[in-house]
Amino acid sequence: MPRLLNVSLFMVFVVLLVPSSLSQNLPYDSLALRLFKMSLGSGKSYEALTDLSVNIGHRISGSPQAEKAVQWTKKKMEEFGLENVRLEPVMVPRWVRGEVEEGSVILPDGKKIPVKITALGGSIATPAKGISAEVVEVHSWEELRALGEKAWGKIVFFNRPFDRTKIHTFEGYGGAVDQRGGGAIEAAKAGGVMALVRSMTPRLDDFPHTGGMGYNDTVPKIPAAAISTIGANKLSDLLKQHPKLKVYLKISSKTLPDVESANVVGELKGSEIPNEVVVIGGHLDSWDKGQGAHDDGAGVVQCIDAVRMLKELGLRPRRTIRVVAFMNEENGGRGGQAYAAKLRPGEKHIAAIESDMGGFMPRGFTAATDSVRFEKIARWAPLFRHIMADRILPGGGGADISWLIPQGVPQIALLPEVQRYFNYHHADDDTIDNVEERELQLGAACMAILSYVLAQEGL
Amino acid sequence: MPRLLNVSLFMVFVVLLVPSSLSQNLPYDSLALRLFKMSLGSGKSYEALTDLSVNIGHRISGSPQAEKAVQWTKKKMEEFGLENVRLEPVMVPRWVRGEVEEGSVILPDGKKIPVKITALGGSIATPAKGISAEVVEVHSWEELRALGEKAWGKIVFFNRPFDRTKIHTFEGYGGAVDQRGGGAIEAAKAGGVMALVRSMTPRLDDFPHTGGMGYNDTVPKIPAAAISTIGANKLSDLLKQHPKLKVYLKISSKTLPDVESANVVGELKGSEIPNEVVVIGGHLDSWDKGQGAHDDGAGVVQCIDAVRMLKELGLRPRRTIRVVAFMNEENGGRGGQAYAAKLRPGEKHIAAIESDMGGFMPRGFTAATDSVRFEKIARWAPLFRHIMADRILPGGGGADISWLIPQGVPQIALLPEVQRYFNYHHADDDTIDNVEERELQLGAACMAILSYVLAQEGL
Repeated sequence: MPRLLNVSLFMVFVVLLVPSSLSQNLPYDSLALRLFKMSLGSGKSYEALTDLSVNIGHRISGSPQAEKAVQWTKKKMEEFGLENVRLEPVMVPRWVRGEVEEGSVILPDGKKIPVKITALGGSIATPAKGISAEVVEVHSWEELRALGEKAWGKIVFFNRPFDRTKIHTFEGYGGAVDQRGGGAIEAAKAGGVMALVRSMTPRLDDFPHTGGMGYNDTVPKIPAAAISTIGANKLSDLLKQHPKLKVYLKISSKTLPDVESANVVGELKGSEIPNEVVVIGGHLDSWDKGQGAHDDGAGVVQCIDAVRMLKELGLRPRRTIRVVAFMNEENGGRGGQAYAAKLRPGEKHIAAIESDMGGFMPRGFTAATDSVRFEKIARWAPLFRHIMADRILPGGGGADISWLIPQGVPQIALLPEVQRYFNYHHADDDTIDNVEERELQLGAACMAILSYVLAQEGL
Repeated sequence: MPRLLNVSLFMVFVVLLVPSSLSQNLPYDSLALRLFKMSLGSGKSYEALTDLSVNIGHRISGSPQAEKAVQWTKKKMEEFGLENVRLEPVMVPRWVRGEVEEGSVILPDGKKIPVKITALGGSIATPAKGISAEVVEVHSWEELRALGEKAWGKIVFFNRPFDRTKIHTFEGYGGAVDQRGGGAIEAAKAGGVMALVRSMTPRLDDFPHTGGMGYNDTVPKIPAAAISTIGANKLSDLLKQHPKLKVYLKISSKTLPDVESANVVGELKGSEIPNEVVVIGGHLDSWDKGQGAHDDGAGVVQCIDAVRMLKELGLRPRRTIRVVAFMNEENGGRGGQAYAAKLRPGEKHIAAIESDMGGFMPRGFTAATDSVRFEKIARWAPLFRHIMADRILPGGGGADISWLIPQGVPQIALLPEVQRYFNYHHADDDTIDNVEERELQLGAACMAILSYVLAQEGL
């Protein structure tokens, strides 16, 4: 980057970056700019996320860490000045990984090559001695079915890669994740003894990425594990040389009875129409990997910090802004369901905004509602031009708030840049080290701005 | 992030993210999309940058590593199919850090507290035994001048912070970097014995960030060093308690005679008007910290890879695209000067595009030229909407290509998201680990698209 001789050049560059917009007279424009700068200068999302990540860490539903996180969130909401802070109880599943996870390729000469594997969320355990079996590698259900009896008694290795060429990484994810969700069912149907699934990441790394998987009642339950992308490539290469190699896999996960947990709720009560509510939220639970920093500690702290900043500015909107830290998004969605199911007499949700795509640089929002309300939301897009995030695009909201769709509640999602998201997703490196403070804080400001404007102006 | 039950919701989200644009009929639109996808799927920028970063590392002008990097770049251009690959020699300054860099705060009771410091680029050494002196902390030239004789014989500690509240980090940098550039001069004028400058980063970290500094002929040369932001805060706190504390600083840098180095040049020769040239480039030298990955290995590999991709698609534009890996951007600008000064009879540069703001997610381009040509450039903005980078804004080009301004050559810069840039800038953590492959590759595609379109359509 240029040295001093070009400082003057930079200044030209920088000044012009903030467009001399046609939108300067848009209401709330100076407030938006103020919130961006405040969040960069004295926002507390990053500090809070560091505390949550380092001192509690990952927090799968029903775990002691999840319970700690519930209490931590309640305390943080109180500390940040939210009102009516409370727990709304919800029963959640309790899946436990167990301590033993082992994987290795066993060549015909007996040589063992270790590979990094991890149980998929919801999987049963292997027998205590593990499973050793030959492997069939497939890339689709069709390819598996065509194998017929060749799959009997085998480990079914689902190795269709996350498509790196998709610009939008969620599309790459969407094109591969069926293997994780349905692999155990399809492998069992085909007579396989276990499903081994290539990790859902565009990156070549040695982290196995976990995530939800399912069973159904028509076929036997067999265990399912993820293998790192490096491990998957290695296994695939070795299979070409040694089609009769075996893989040894051992996981010790189990499902315990449901336990009580809670959504954590706090508010900035509306001054005039408090029964009309804008919900903003993220999910407090995470997979039992890394620190659940991007997924979704980021969303939780952004929403709490958003209200803190509004209060610091002495702002109280006409309608209520309610922050919900949802429990159990990852393996059940019980928190979102419970929130939507709870009777709240006289209350009306006018919008719900979720932040659950990582604490990365904001690029805008997506919204799903009727065209009239979509246009009403989209008119606020220029407020976000200060950070070049002035896009409000058609698209979904988020898993937790999706349970409000039947009630007709407009769905909105904070849309960050997602190129890096699946590097860390459900893996050991979803840690605070991989969160950039400024990007996280700008997302918090976005949540503050849009929730305030909607609570003030209605929808 | 939502689990499988919401995959269908994602798909809606993702499909709609690529706007059903009005610009589908823009020429080159399908080519742009193809280049983005190719760069993500099989681009070689990241692989090349990994090689350069790990196997050569930082490469300050005149160093053995810089010489290796020149040869590496020539070979890489040849390997990637560039034409007329050559070195254009240039004499460069040779500043050497030396092996010893020590800093500590000495409290009145004799207790020593180490702080992380590093010589600023171009500084003379301290005496061999170092400098131990009392300290004056200032935040502006005015504050320093007002000290009068209180600054005599002292270490002048410039501690005006990089303003974190600036949304555009280059603006925060621009508001602080005068201390680094002019600190030694101003401290000497005030009778100080050394300049100690707070590192130019918005982050609180323990890396001292180096960078260029200057002397002039009217005052004595005194040594100048950077202190990490953590160290600067510590020193400032301690000064409040112990105004008479001393700081001990020792650096061993020196300036050797100029040596010969080179710009590395390669081309994709134009098919019809080869004497009209679009220059694209970055700088090959770096500061002697980290691996020079973002600054500016990223820009160099993006440009070479851009031409490789165009060739892979069998494309040859009407005009020539010339890649220049400039030498000595960081401490002299000699490469840029030499490139601009070289006589190239019959040739005309129609535009110059620099990538020197890090290998981060592209947000668009900036351009500086007359309004007619600006509009001609800006009409291509929609080609970059596929990655939401469809902004072409008024602004500078880059230090290396700025030497072409007197010839009237339009200046263009790739504009990435710069929130993270100054975390790593001129510091030990400017390493490949902090570069995201997908973001780097999308930048390479941007360089390929804009250079091709300009070389094809003219300006």
